[in-house]
Amino acid sequence: MRMYDLIIKKRNGNELTKEEINYFIDNYTKGNIPDYQVSALLMAIYFQKMNMRETADLTMAMVNSGDILDLSKIEGIKVDKHSTGGVGDTTTLVLTPMVAALGIPVAKMSGRGLGHTGGTIDKLESFEGFSVEITEEQFINNVNTKKIAIMGQTADLAPADKKLYALRDVTGTVDNISLISASIMSKKIAAGADCIVLDVKVGDGAFMKSYEDAKKLAEAMVSIGKNVGRNTVAVISDMDQPLGLAVGNALEVREALDTLSGKGPKDLLELCLALGSNMVVLAKKTETVEEAREMLLGTIKDGSALTKLKEFIEAQGGNVEQIDNPDLLPKAKYVYEVKSDVEGYVSKINSENIGLIAMELGAGRATKEDVVDLAVGIVLNKKRGDKVEKGDIIAYIHANEESKIEKSAKAILANYKITSKYDENIPLVYDVVR
Amino acid sequence: MRMYDLIIKKRNGNELTKEEINYFIDNYTKGNIPDYQVSALLMAIYFQKMNMRETADLTMAMVNSGDILDLSKIEGIKVDKHSTGGVGDTTTLVLTPMVAALGIPVAKMSGRGLGHTGGTIDKLESFEGFSVEITEEQFINNVNTKKIAIMGQTADLAPADKKLYALRDVTGTVDNISLISASIMSKKIAAGADCIVLDVKVGDGAFMKSYEDAKKLAEAMVSIGKNVGRNTVAVISDMDQPLGLAVGNALEVREALDTLSGKGPKDLLELCLALGSNMVVLAKKTETVEEAREMLLGTIKDGSALTKLKEFIEAQGGNVEQIDNPDLLPKAKYVYEVKSDVEGYVSKINSENIGLIAMELGAGRATKEDVVDLAVGIVLNKKRGDKVEKGDIIAYIHANEESKIEKSAKAILANYKITSKYDENIPLVYDVVR
Repeated sequence: MRMYDLIIKKRNGNELTKEEINYFIDNYTKGNIPDYQVSALLMAIYFQKMNMRETADLTMAMVNSGDILDLSKIEGIKVDKHSTGGVGDTTTLVLTPMVAALGIPVAKMSGRGLGHTGGTIDKLESFEGFSVEITEEQFINNVNTKKIAIMGQTADLAPADKKLYALRDVTGTVDNISLISASIMSKKIAAGADCIVLDVKVGDGAFMKSYEDAKKLAEAMVSIGKNVGRNTVAVISDMDQPLGLAVGNALEVREALDTLSGKGPKDLLELCLALGSNMVVLAKKTETVEEAREMLLGTIKDGSALTKLKEFIEAQGGNVEQIDNPDLLPKAKYVYEVKSDVEGYVSKINSENIGLIAMELGAGRATKEDVVDLAVGIVLNKKRGDKVEKGDIIAYIHANEESKIEKSAKAILANYKITSKYDENIPLVYDVVR
Repeated sequence: MRMYDLIIKKRNGNELTKEEINYFIDNYTKGNIPDYQVSALLMAIYFQKMNMRETADLTMAMVNSGDILDLSKIEGIKVDKHSTGGVGDTTTLVLTPMVAALGIPVAKMSGRGLGHTGGTIDKLESFEGFSVEITEEQFINNVNTKKIAIMGQTADLAPADKKLYALRDVTGTVDNISLISASIMSKKIAAGADCIVLDVKVGDGAFMKSYEDAKKLAEAMVSIGKNVGRNTVAVISDMDQPLGLAVGNALEVREALDTLSGKGPKDLLELCLALGSNMVVLAKKTETVEEAREMLLGTIKDGSALTKLKEFIEAQGGNVEQIDNPDLLPKAKYVYEVKSDVEGYVSKINSENIGLIAMELGAGRATKEDVVDLAVGIVLNKKRGDKVEKGDIIAYIHANEESKIEKSAKAILANYKITSKYDENIPLVYDVVR
């Protein structure tokens, strides 16, 4: 088999066999195939597409390129959740204790990553002493006894995906549904998930800008799941404005605590219920999402979700006093009120730019070397559809450097579109693909 | 400017500016842009195409990537000729002395290259003592006094093309009209040509298999010529059977001598007249191709073309006795008659395979390190449309290794298609594009 022939085959619009895809991924991972042939194939795939069978085979070839977590010692069906990425997305922090409180095992391996705010691990490190440096034994033991644990990424999961993604990123070959979906699914499958619930974001602050594209991506991932024996459900949700109100690490932790106490933003809770109810059904705890939804709401009402979070944080060395008293969480030196100079209705908040402003304040990483400032960020006070009077606070800036405040405030105002009328009705959840 | 943006721009179907194309070629030649980005761009060009302006800019960017021969010290209009490559193509050996005999300067820089038979230099080395190792001064002096000289390639002509071609060859991005035509034209322009006559071969033994594709390539190259101020004419000619009868170095030299003496194969002479008459017109020696054709025929009738060849060979150290007595040219030990075992009409000769059989006998190079055996090759005795009786000789094998004869004979028979009827009428010259 020669890589050259695979390029020509795909370039000419033909289907690659499973053996050909395995050959390509296996030899690329081992360094036997040069980047320049792979980028030519990727561009050919961009134009000629891959069908569902090819996409599923690509996914499994990437899964098999590295370690696969063995979670067989964990009792029950392991359901993982993945978001395609948005701004101010605190769902994981809220969702996982709710699901775990119902006895469903939550076994997450997480990385730090780049972005507007830190990753899940960074956020959880807002709790003093909390650590993901636990052994695999402790991890499995914690999940079996407490139903929830998070571990730093130690295993070499889907290295082919890492290598391919780095190449796609610089060769204009990111935007292809098959390549995107295989990339996401390979990492989840290698991390040991039995079932997967996907949160596919759509809108201006998301990778998928239109509902049609988001739907295609959702369908592709659900289809991969079916093809490789991993039940998968995708929820298509709005990212045309930030989710919830907080954008920043400790700020989002606080928002998660509020939500678990029944006092959080409605949209955040609603999305957690939409995603969580599908997780509960996939874990076979109940048959309908309606029942699952009630069960999940129950964990907030009876306090069991918050108790579960405490158990989890304590088990990994975190200070649970900060849960009882969120004022003990990292706090920024300055809190600045951003006030509107016009009146009308909020008709649009540019999520992506709000995320970038938070990153500028120190909440996220532009490069791997950056250190995240857990305390800083933005808390929105007005969201889409809200009425605004002149002088109303539309957002709060939490900053540790006074010098950054003015620029951030201006930028926030510039990214709020306020119009005299607002009668659009953008749903929070567009669709569920199963 | 970033290469990444150029990839995205072309991928999305947009036109690259002259500045962008210069940036790409200049930085790729200097090693500032990695192969993997270039192969992605090439594949995007494969799918999205380049328009004529982009193609002309690409050509000139490649010309400017290295040395450009300065032939300004040579008097008159320098017309170069290029063939897209066929089997048994002896036109250069016949054509150049004919044109030079009319006082038109022929200043060729030649390489050895790979292929079924050697390059023009290899063929000319059939004359004992002939050398292309002459200084630039001698070269220019010879052209001015004798109107013809050939020099080995010393200058670094269009290095960007060399680098790009090597990459295209392994990434499935050869087959694109813009890339092919820019590659050919950049080398000719860098070699100092004022005008260019192209022989675009079409058929089974050529790179372009269909007339439509050959026509597109011809039009693209003529258009580049127009765009960059080099008058260019393209003759589209048949390569559905080998040209002339001889396939092999000394064998082709002998055929060239025959043709210059008025005893050569009709198709070879005819193509030389078609190409040559356009060269004569471009060199402004006369106004019509009909007149030019008569002038060229005159050089054969009055012996001036053969005399010119002698002058040329002598000036570069070759033994001209071999011209007066072609039996002194390199000769193979064995000449084997390949006889037909069926009767009928020759309806097809697979040119490409005939070329490969000659190469197997030692006439060409598969790798740069191979040494060409000047004596060996094939001389056809029957061509398309000829009637064949059982036992008739269809070809002669000239071999130096007895062991190779049987296999070659079988292969030649297998590549002659003999049918009971033949009434196709494939032209030698399909079309002339100016």
